[in-house]
Amino acid sequence: MATISDVARLAGLSVSTVSRVINKSPHVSDKKREAVESAMNELGYVPLPAARQLRGSRTNTMAVTIPRIVNPFFSYLVDAIEQELDEAGYSTLIVQTFGRAEEELTALNLLKNQQVDGVILCSLENDWSVINGYCKYGKIVLVNEYLKDVDVPIIRGDQYDGFYTATNFLFDNGYKKIAYATGRKTITIMKKESNFDADRFAGFQSSLSDHNLGFNYDWLFTNAHTAEDGKEIFKKIMTLKNKPDVVIAGSDEVAMGISQEAEKQGIKVPEQLGVLGVDDQPASANLRIPLTTIKQPVDEMGRKAARAMLGLINGEEVSKMQICKLKVIKRASA
Amino acid sequence: MATISDVARLAGLSVSTVSRVINKSPHVSDKKREAVESAMNELGYVPLPAARQLRGSRTNTMAVTIPRIVNPFFSYLVDAIEQELDEAGYSTLIVQTFGRAEEELTALNLLKNQQVDGVILCSLENDWSVINGYCKYGKIVLVNEYLKDVDVPIIRGDQYDGFYTATNFLFDNGYKKIAYATGRKTITIMKKESNFDADRFAGFQSSLSDHNLGFNYDWLFTNAHTAEDGKEIFKKIMTLKNKPDVVIAGSDEVAMGISQEAEKQGIKVPEQLGVLGVDDQPASANLRIPLTTIKQPVDEMGRKAARAMLGLINGEEVSKMQICKLKVIKRASA
Repeated sequence: MATISDVARLAGLSVSTVSRVINKSPHVSDKKREAVESAMNELGYVPLPAARQLRGSRTNTMAVTIPRIVNPFFSYLVDAIEQELDEAGYSTLIVQTFGRAEEELTALNLLKNQQVDGVILCSLENDWSVINGYCKYGKIVLVNEYLKDVDVPIIRGDQYDGFYTATNFLFDNGYKKIAYATGRKTITIMKKESNFDADRFAGFQSSLSDHNLGFNYDWLFTNAHTAEDGKEIFKKIMTLKNKPDVVIAGSDEVAMGISQEAEKQGIKVPEQLGVLGVDDQPASANLRIPLTTIKQPVDEMGRKAARAMLGLINGEEVSKMQICKLKVIKRASA
Repeated sequence: MATISDVARLAGLSVSTVSRVINKSPHVSDKKREAVESAMNELGYVPLPAARQLRGSRTNTMAVTIPRIVNPFFSYLVDAIEQELDEAGYSTLIVQTFGRAEEELTALNLLKNQQVDGVILCSLENDWSVINGYCKYGKIVLVNEYLKDVDVPIIRGDQYDGFYTATNFLFDNGYKKIAYATGRKTITIMKKESNFDADRFAGFQSSLSDHNLGFNYDWLFTNAHTAEDGKEIFKKIMTLKNKPDVVIAGSDEVAMGISQEAEKQGIKVPEQLGVLGVDDQPASANLRIPLTTIKQPVDEMGRKAARAMLGLINGEEVSKMQICKLKVIKRASA
């Protein structure tokens, strides 16, 4: 890439003259200005923003990965992150992973290529051993999804407690046969606090155990992301001999689909089938059957993640783990 | 940035050996592999993806700008674009502009710095004279927002016709006093087909004129983006002596806010106040008062924009202007 010296050389002028043109100083003749501008054009030279010049080699740009932009939980999470970064003068590049390892590497390679100062990962698509290899190129922060024993700041919801409390809430409201839907293809059973999905399921199962119940594997629905997936889940439930009386839907979108399809087929929500969402999306309160849901503090999580990243960049002490509370929002669907 | 030759030199091996290591050829001794890998690490050398090596200097990455990620119209638009680009082997970086010129430049500078092959702009924040200066660095496509007389492919909705038809629809349903809300701070009156917002307003005004009505400036609400803004609009309407009987809300989000606040204050929608959304977001059909709205064909527009970009990249003939139809979806709110 061309440097300011290359521009000066081609224009036949001093570096300080080039710098004055870049900084729009009035003390430059039109002729010199034109010579510098034409040299810059010829070389494809892009002046660094002033802040970057001051701070050294920083790009003042961050990357944020999210699995799906059309999932409002993630669009609001990235928006909170970006607002906080923006206040600190950073631009943000958003990378959608679609849950694929190679798209996460697209974001991590921005770090490796020094195109961004840091990457905030809102989900985890690669093994930690792979991601960890990128820590030497810049700063990494995890938000939402998490792992145990990693050396980067993590900002996460208390998934175990949230799902334990929510499942107890369903029992308290008279439900006994609780189905469980998740976006994942599989659920790995692990020690507590090791993993987002494992903790959600562990919270759910602990509540079942407290009520002397095991889990019925006919009531597990995996790979559920959209309202369409929710409709399919409802259809599958209808084919079961032993039907659940409530579904923990994994997201508000899936919950919305289950509830819509139930309504279409004349099954009453919440009387014949309860539906519990997760996320508390903006529309959830205003649906025909307002969603009972597990609210994640998305704005708080996003802002904390951005502040952790800014702290790392500025060489401050950053706490390794910040845990935000989930809570059940009671409405009509369960 | 380090090249493959730098790696070969540092490793004390030939370029073809380095290439064999990069391409995971089995015919390399472990010792040579380690030497190459350690040289690559030391130099921070990142091998280009195979496709990029074949095609020359392409990055196989695109940038897409959107004003706000939390507006589902834009998250679905960018998702459609990205799905189509993804099928063609491209990664996508998403840049949120918040309606600011400098954030749009962040995306355009990715093009200038050869970090992306093309930029798809879903909104326009800079003057065309500024954007046009970036056309020499790569491909630019406009989708959704548009201008007259520019030399890049444009994929857009027929805003004039959509708003003309929708306003006629309101008259046909007995409304006479039509308020108009927009996300813009001002509306510029221009010749037809010059500008997104001008065309929307022109379609609206043409229908008013057909019904021998002028526009009441007390019923113009600008800078309206969110459900919260919609609530404020409703409150302002309540303070007016001469109240509108329906609002064209500019977006489903604003429509949702107006409708919620009306319900809260005991004003019946659609009997006492009609509300017409724009976009037909996923939740709009399932609200307590399902939204009547102007549907934009977001998936069609996104995919066409991506295909136009891929056509440009591949040197194909690409049509300069593709216009997609808007239509009114009649539900309960108007």
